[in-house]
Amino acid sequence: MASELNDFSKLCVHTLTTKPWNLRQCVENYSAAGIRGITIWRNVLDGQNLKEARKLLDDSGLDVVSVARGGFFPSAEKEKRQAAIDDNLFAIEQAAAVGAPVIVLVCGADGRQSLQKSRDQIREGIVKILPQAKAAGVKLAIEPLHPMYAGDRSAINTLEQANDMAEEINSEYVGIAVDVYHLWWDAHLQQEIKRCGQNGNLLAFHVCDWNVPTVDFLNDRGLMGDGCINIPQIRGWVEETGFRGYDEVEIFSDKYWATDQKEYLEKIKQAYLTKT
Amino acid sequence: MASELNDFSKLCVHTLTTKPWNLRQCVENYSAAGIRGITIWRNVLDGQNLKEARKLLDDSGLDVVSVARGGFFPSAEKEKRQAAIDDNLFAIEQAAAVGAPVIVLVCGADGRQSLQKSRDQIREGIVKILPQAKAAGVKLAIEPLHPMYAGDRSAINTLEQANDMAEEINSEYVGIAVDVYHLWWDAHLQQEIKRCGQNGNLLAFHVCDWNVPTVDFLNDRGLMGDGCINIPQIRGWVEETGFRGYDEVEIFSDKYWATDQKEYLEKIKQAYLTKT
Repeated sequence: MASELNDFSKLCVHTLTTKPWNLRQCVENYSAAGIRGITIWRNVLDGQNLKEARKLLDDSGLDVVSVARGGFFPSAEKEKRQAAIDDNLFAIEQAAAVGAPVIVLVCGADGRQSLQKSRDQIREGIVKILPQAKAAGVKLAIEPLHPMYAGDRSAINTLEQANDMAEEINSEYVGIAVDVYHLWWDAHLQQEIKRCGQNGNLLAFHVCDWNVPTVDFLNDRGLMGDGCINIPQIRGWVEETGFRGYDEVEIFSDKYWATDQKEYLEKIKQAYLTKT
Repeated sequence: MASELNDFSKLCVHTLTTKPWNLRQCVENYSAAGIRGITIWRNVLDGQNLKEARKLLDDSGLDVVSVARGGFFPSAEKEKRQAAIDDNLFAIEQAAAVGAPVIVLVCGADGRQSLQKSRDQIREGIVKILPQAKAAGVKLAIEPLHPMYAGDRSAINTLEQANDMAEEINSEYVGIAVDVYHLWWDAHLQQEIKRCGQNGNLLAFHVCDWNVPTVDFLNDRGLMGDGCINIPQIRGWVEETGFRGYDEVEIFSDKYWATDQKEYLEKIKQAYLTKT
């Protein structure tokens, strides 16, 4: 059984959830709404002075939960794999600069090669950036993505695969982000969440909903309660592992992005208390 | 290693692959193109006299491989579950009438209830129609569908789940249809195909490709070679079980449906010989 949610002390919102807002707007509005955590997507750091961003965040009192996203390691082209390493090293610098303890990794895939080859390149990429992550005090969270992204966005498509990889790398700086959107359909989810927690790899928990029908591969996620995912059940499994981190609301939605974002933030708060 | 494909003796085309054609056009064009097998989607039987359809098929010399599709058993509403049973019994009549030894089941899902509840209703539905299937000499092939359909089209989303269910029902009239489109991403695919064959449950093998990027949830399947699935590898695993049935081309594609269907059929034949 999931704990009762009576306040917003464990609510974190991803800046991409309110995509129309820049970093300052996110910070000011989340703070004003009583939200405690923020996960920063790198697009809102583009062109930002990182020290100023850090000051903005520190002054706000918001807890910086993570930076999204690193990853995209695999490519059939060696130059692109190196470019990905470089980009991930930059992401580590950004995370350290804004005080984020975790970077979420969307691991990537390249349909021109086998999934196994992409997985090997993901492991190789993570191992390569691990020394810098350790030095910066930033953990890397492998996020398994829904199998519908196996052709281009992630060759890690189940929590079992993410667990396998995290256990193989076996570093306290490598763990996993569990997102209900990607994993809700999996009959092995409960046991794999348990395994993930037992092995100390559960770093983050993301929520949104699966719309029925879903009409877009990227930007048709639902607000909690809109769709068919039993979010409280999965949150209960996560909490049973001893996880006491944030519930992170990560919704990509053309529909909600087209609405007033302050009103939307209130809807998120209500859906958090009643449907999460 | 998959066998070499040098002719069309194991090539079957689904009528929905050439959606613009009615049954007569499919039969005449497939025959003229030297294709040996046909899987009949029930939409082309609508309004058809089944005896005439049978004569058309018999005269053509085409092998009727299966009828697609039955299934859609789960619903939160009891009346709809009964309507599904009735529709599946009608599908069995249709299959027997046109001489199809197999009905493909797209099992269904209802996002208003849990996946487990939908799975229970699927099992219940199959068990209910099984006596009529046996009496008609028509086998039922559970087709696991991609997890992106778990909200509305199928609560059976991996070959492991299909194997579990077929083994539990344990009837020579219940087996499985393996479709590369739905299953290619699964790291357990090879072992589950082996298991499926060993238990005598491998009834059908469907091919197409996964486009990168895929832009539509239903009608953006690729012709073999268009996308990222290693089809020969999977066909090899299927053949290693002793499977000697047809390679069934099942492509839903707005793009290809908009082209000349005779030219498309030639493309299918070429892709079959070189990319399957």
